[in-house]
Amino acid sequence: MTASEVVTTPAYEFDLATSVTALDDGRFAGAIADGWDIGGNANGGYLLAIAISALREASGRPDPITVTAHYLAPGRPGPVEVTSETIKTGKRLVTTSGSLWSGDRRTLQVLAAFGTVEHADSYVYADGAPPVMPPIEECVFRSRQQGTVEVAIMDRLDIWLDPSCAGFQTGGPRGVGDPGHRAEMRGYVSFADGRPWDTLSLMLACDCFPPAVFHLDLPPGWVPTVELTVQVRARPAPGPLHCRFTTRYVSGDTFEEDGELWDSTGRLVALSRQFALIARA
Amino acid sequence: MTASEVVTTPAYEFDLATSVTALDDGRFAGAIADGWDIGGNANGGYLLAIAISALREASGRPDPITVTAHYLAPGRPGPVEVTSETIKTGKRLVTTSGSLWSGDRRTLQVLAAFGTVEHADSYVYADGAPPVMPPIEECVFRSRQQGTVEVAIMDRLDIWLDPSCAGFQTGGPRGVGDPGHRAEMRGYVSFADGRPWDTLSLMLACDCFPPAVFHLDLPPGWVPTVELTVQVRARPAPGPLHCRFTTRYVSGDTFEEDGELWDSTGRLVALSRQFALIARA
Repeated sequence: MTASEVVTTPAYEFDLATSVTALDDGRFAGAIADGWDIGGNANGGYLLAIAISALREASGRPDPITVTAHYLAPGRPGPVEVTSETIKTGKRLVTTSGSLWSGDRRTLQVLAAFGTVEHADSYVYADGAPPVMPPIEECVFRSRQQGTVEVAIMDRLDIWLDPSCAGFQTGGPRGVGDPGHRAEMRGYVSFADGRPWDTLSLMLACDCFPPAVFHLDLPPGWVPTVELTVQVRARPAPGPLHCRFTTRYVSGDTFEEDGELWDSTGRLVALSRQFALIARA
Repeated sequence: MTASEVVTTPAYEFDLATSVTALDDGRFAGAIADGWDIGGNANGGYLLAIAISALREASGRPDPITVTAHYLAPGRPGPVEVTSETIKTGKRLVTTSGSLWSGDRRTLQVLAAFGTVEHADSYVYADGAPPVMPPIEECVFRSRQQGTVEVAIMDRLDIWLDPSCAGFQTGGPRGVGDPGHRAEMRGYVSFADGRPWDTLSLMLACDCFPPAVFHLDLPPGWVPTVELTVQVRARPAPGPLHCRFTTRYVSGDTFEEDGELWDSTGRLVALSRQFALIARA
């Protein structure tokens, strides 16, 4: 199977917004599309998906398997170029390194391994389960407006939050401090235009929820992602993803956010972990 | 502060075994020393420490902050070269990319951000705690012999395992299946020669315990690390590290192993996560 055979129909917004054209020397031309931003800055998961769209094609393998990105600069709409280097071509994995450039500004640096996601059910061990949350119709639809910030990407994604995680939006209790509550966001996510999830779009899904630290009394300001790693475990079945994002340790102005993404059949499809900063005033 | 000012005294084995000499063009000369291996292959954490020793010097910053390595080939004793590229020089972080070469074979590919580890205590949130385990004198010293494999690196490190995690060595119950047990390794680790832990040697500490999947009935064979990410949170205080490594999800012949490393004062010093394969026969 070649990478081009697994590209889904380009009728969906996400595919148009992450399509790339191969140039010479391992370079790819693409663009940061309008409308995938939060307050004008492109969503980090979307930026990663553009880069992985290009690197996946360079790898000749159908699926990203483990992906790490360092975020270097905000992404603004306009043309971008992805440069790629093949680090190793193995039987099971192809390892690539690459950069997403906006003009001469490096926006993202990526190190990623590609292969074919396995569905071997011969051995499975799970010490964990999909998030426990009310059915989708009892959840809180994430609004496009968040305080004074326009979350434009919410035109592209439908997110339904577990009501006990939605206090930042509804004005209800934020959770931490109440017994049994944690710095955790739980909810469902689908593309607004009905595009099914695949291993490429999991890059976006891993970074599209409100930060779990919204449950904490952090000083106001950005919580920029420094690094995001995604492990892909399975191809998602049709239907919304069931997601849980948790922050356990805030120390030294830094924190992690761990994500678990499950498909509608209860299969784990991805694990993610971010390293983020509490911005200084 | 320059990186050279924080290099500790080279009287310790680890410092000798990870020392590098700057060449031109961002290259560094070093060596994989004898005796840091498991069955002849250099420990992955040790290989990472050599690469980070070089990249840290290239960055001009004292501490690795978030580090990702992809493992490409086994490391054998002998000379190595580390190549480096500065991706971004920011106020708070310097981002570098680099490779560890054994001759013309690329052994490791690294993407890492360096800075100064903060000890800001103005805001700390913790939804977790150091591992609960018996005092060190009631733990099981990890032996140098593991079945037919010589774990030579155990001459350099002293690891004391929580007895309930040591069944693979003592022949006792392995744990999983018993109520309350998980695929988890808990224990203490110190350098055999008394070297104190610092942010560089945390790279080694994150990958020196027996795999947590030793608690599972996996088919025999290697469980090669594909990718290892380490987030450094604090400079360790003197004394052994208190460590917990947990695997929660084995699926499609892959699994993650999450590590938490705490110092002797109960401070979180690092989080790690590996992505590893179950090797096929």
